[in-house]
Order: sequence, then structure tokens, then C-alpha cells
Amino acid sequence: METGYLNGKFVPKSEITISPDDRGFQFGDGIYEVVRWYQGAFFDMDSHLARLKRSMRELRINWPRPDLFPSICLDLIKQNKLEDQPAMVYLQVTRGVAPRTHSFPPLTVQPTLYAYAWGFVPDTASKESGIKVMLKEDIRWSRCDIKSIALLANTISFQEASLSGLKECIFVRNGMITEASHSNVFFVIDGTLFTHPESNFVLSGVTRKNVLRIAQDAGIKIREEALQENRLRFTQEAFITNTSAEITPVVDIGGNLIGSGAPGSVTKLLMEKFNAGVNALKR
Amino acid sequence: METGYLNGKFVPKSEITISPDDRGFQFGDGIYEVVRWYQGAFFDMDSHLARLKRSMRELRINWPRPDLFPSICLDLIKQNKLEDQPAMVYLQVTRGVAPRTHSFPPLTVQPTLYAYAWGFVPDTASKESGIKVMLKEDIRWSRCDIKSIALLANTISFQEASLSGLKECIFVRNGMITEASHSNVFFVIDGTLFTHPESNFVLSGVTRKNVLRIAQDAGIKIREEALQENRLRFTQEAFITNTSAEITPVVDIGGNLIGSGAPGSVTKLLMEKFNAGVNALKR
Repeated sequence: METGYLNGKFVPKSEITISPDDRGFQFGDGIYEVVRWYQGAFFDMDSHLARLKRSMRELRINWPRPDLFPSICLDLIKQNKLEDQPAMVYLQVTRGVAPRTHSFPPLTVQPTLYAYAWGFVPDTASKESGIKVMLKEDIRWSRCDIKSIALLANTISFQEASLSGLKECIFVRNGMITEASHSNVFFVIDGTLFTHPESNFVLSGVTRKNVLRIAQDAGIKIREEALQENRLRFTQEAFITNTSAEITPVVDIGGNLIGSGAPGSVTKLLMEKFNAGVNALKR
Repeated sequence: METGYLNGKFVPKSEITISPDDRGFQFGDGIYEVVRWYQGAFFDMDSHLARLKRSMRELRINWPRPDLFPSICLDLIKQNKLEDQPAMVYLQVTRGVAPRTHSFPPLTVQPTLYAYAWGFVPDTASKESGIKVMLKEDIRWSRCDIKSIALLANTISFQEASLSGLKECIFVRNGMITEASHSNVFFVIDGTLFTHPESNFVLSGVTRKNVLRIAQDAGIKIREEALQENRLRFTQEAFITNTSAEITPVVDIGGNLIGSGAPGSVTKLLMEKFNAGVNALKR
């Protein structure tokens, strides 16, 4: 029986219910984190915790005990007997249950905490051969730095990619590439690694940050700047990063092959070093 | 005891619960309508129903029976004994309950329907003296024409106005005034009525549409075009419209008086004609 977490208690997931007057349900007024379990440890829990706190601070959501996050995650892994397999934990914090008004409820209203864990089989095929993606106009709001649950723009954009048999959609805002529907995106041009700088237009991805660190350690030249869409044709390699896909090569964007249409050498080097790092986490 | 509506059934509102895996709760993946009851009839139910259908069509949410909407609303009014007072009905339709993925669940997943009604006391003081509002950058997504529940940008913007003791915040996108956090906005300059045209940057408000009709019938010159922020100083009158506030004059924007600081003559004429229309609905 699956165990979930709600407002301080570990309970059978199937028994968890939410009030329809939760601000998460009526306004998308909440934030979330997804962390990856590597058979022995979470990947960069510190960064996830820091981002969780930042998201709440930006939205003034008052869960006074965010430092419980790592132990909630670990308890969910253990209680669901997921220690020995690839797994994920999802945690969502909303502004709580209150009569519907756009203004925030009194601070006496407690945030709603919901979390659960699941085991999964990593998509190694995509990592080996790379994925095809599409380009789409970035119709999201301009606070994409907040990891909010108001993800409608992301879901309807990704659905379009999905219906076309593609694995991601990369967003273009005012002619500049920002990120993808649930990933950050990197490009390699003449050996230099490009990715959008941290800003209100992209999520500060935990995997993104780690990839930049690995690239720097490997002596790869990095430029954190937004790539113009019309420079895509000069791109020899591309990849996306996120917590579940880690580093996944992109070999086709909107029907145009990237490089030779196979994962490139810089991408493969970064994947190798990333894998070495996560293997060190495993028991 | 308050009666609510969930997925085809009228039940005590306090007993209604939602799955935490509802896409409304995890993605803001849903739409809503709020309709006003005038002691005998709903205000322009046809337009609300048409917009409900359009929102679902745009998001491909498949509630096959949207034509039940008016009768659900009426039943909630009756079951809650609200026939003889000002009341509202809220109805929300989400993409339903499914394991979390950005792509849509199979079409076999039923949408979640949630509705409830409440009586209220109209804010006549605001209508008589007008309200003060602030200007804020429009940080919302670029599909504001869809009446989605992913309202986080609206709530955090409105909260800022609310903390300053203001009753609305008017959004400015690229120097142009779009609408407000939960209202459309109109301006009068030299006797001409201005409001943003229907577009992806504003909600096609039901009250907005009716105000335009009333203004046209009254021979008022109308220009449906976006007002530049820097033309606000030429504005002699301003008002917001929405289902609960109807037409509410705006007398101060960001600390600058509009006209004399009291509701203007065009606004008052429109309010009078609007009131005549809704009084005709009452039993």
C-alpha cells in the first residue's frame, strides 16, 4: 500500500483528500519540488531545499518548517520501500484552505502540504539516442523563476509536443530561447556551452546548476546568455536537463537535425561526469 | 447546511473533497465561471455558458454536458435558499484525476466538476464613491482570454493592491493598459469610451460586453483599443467591470485623481442603464 504525506502525517495515499476550497485547487496558488533518489541518497537536496524556501518567500507562503523537507522525503522513500531503486519524491505546498478571494487569507490559515514518492525506470533510450523536440512560443507568465503549480501554459505546450511524438518543447520568447516545458536547455556552439542565465524567464534548475559546475570543472567554456532562435542553425549540440531526465541529448529541433543527429562529444562528456557523480551517491 | 455540487451530485458542501492528484490541484489545469443571481434570474447566462464552452475548447477539456451549467446553477440557488437575495454561483471544471505528467491523461479520464453558491451584500459604497487602484506590470501569461484557474499572477498582484488598501490593480503590458486582476477596465477621454479590444491579453468579460452594448445603445462613442499608460493623465473617467462589482467607478489610479476624484457623468449614465437592466431581471 502506497504511503503519502499530508499536513504532517504519513497516511495511505489513497486516503488523502484535499478541500475543494484549497487555494491550490482554485488559484494554482502553491509551489512544488521534485527530488531524485539515487539508491542511497537524494540528488543535491540542499539546492532543492534552498529553492523550496525561495519559492515560498517569493509568494509569501508560510510553511514554518521547510527544513523538514529532507526528512519527509526520506521517510516516504523508506515507508514505500523504494531505497533500492530509482525513485522520486514530489512535494507541494499551497497557501491553504480559505473562502475564495484573490487576496491572501489571514496568516492563521495553514499551508497545505502534500507529498508522495514513486519508483520509476529511467528513460535510457532517450539518453542514448537523444530526443526530438519542437519550438513553441513562450506563453508563460514572467515569473518562471518561481516553481509554482500554476503550470497550465507548460502542460498545454507540452501536450502539443507530445501529440507530435516529441519529448519536449523548447520555448522562444521575443526571439530568444528561454527553456523547455519542464527542463532547462543547453546548446554547444564551437565548443562553448550556452544556456539562458538565471532570470525571471527561466527556472533555476538544480540539474542545470550542477551541469554548469561540472562543465566548469571540465574546463568547458560557458556563456550564460539567451540564444537567439536564429542562431540554432549554428548549434552543433543541444541537451535538456531536469531532475528525472538528468542530461538528455536533443538531436532534432523542429525537424532540423542538431549536428550529426546523434549526441555530441561535449554532451557525452558531461553525461559521463554527471553519471560518475550520481553513481558516487549510490550505496 | 450549505449544498455544493461535485461531479453530477448535489451534496453537503462540507463533505466535498478532491483528489490530491486532480490536475486542478497539481497544474492549475482547469477553467471556471462565476455567474450572478439577481433575485429571479442569472445575468446573461448565455454569455457565461458560451465562454465556459470556449475555455474548455481552447484547453481541450472534455466535459460533454456543458449545457447542464444553467440548471446546476439554478439548483444550487434553490437548494441553498438564495432565490430572494443577491447571490453568486462558482463552477470549476478541471481535466480530472490522473498520475502527474505534463501531457494530458487519456480521454477516459473524466473532468472534475465542482460548484457552489453563496449569498452576498453588494459593495454599494465602492459604487457610490468609486475606488482607488494601483498600476502593476502585467506578469500574466499570454492567454488571458482563457478563464483558467491558474490565477497565481492575479492573486499575488491583487494582494499587493490589497495590502495598500486599494480595491484593484490595473495591469500594464509593454506600456499598454490591458485589464485588472479580476476586472476589465474602461476609460473616458473627451466623451469617448476606451477599453482594450478582445485579444489574448484580456478576458472577454460578460459585464464588459454588456457595458459596450449599453454604451452603444446610448450613443456613446466607443474605441476598443488599448490605452497607453502615459495617456492616463488625459483620462476624465475610469471604471472597472466584473460580475460582482458590475460597473464600479475608479477615482484614483496610483495616487493620481481621475477627473474630479468622483464618479463621472458617462460612468454614472452607464451605471444607471446597467441597473435598469438588472432590475428588470428581478422578480
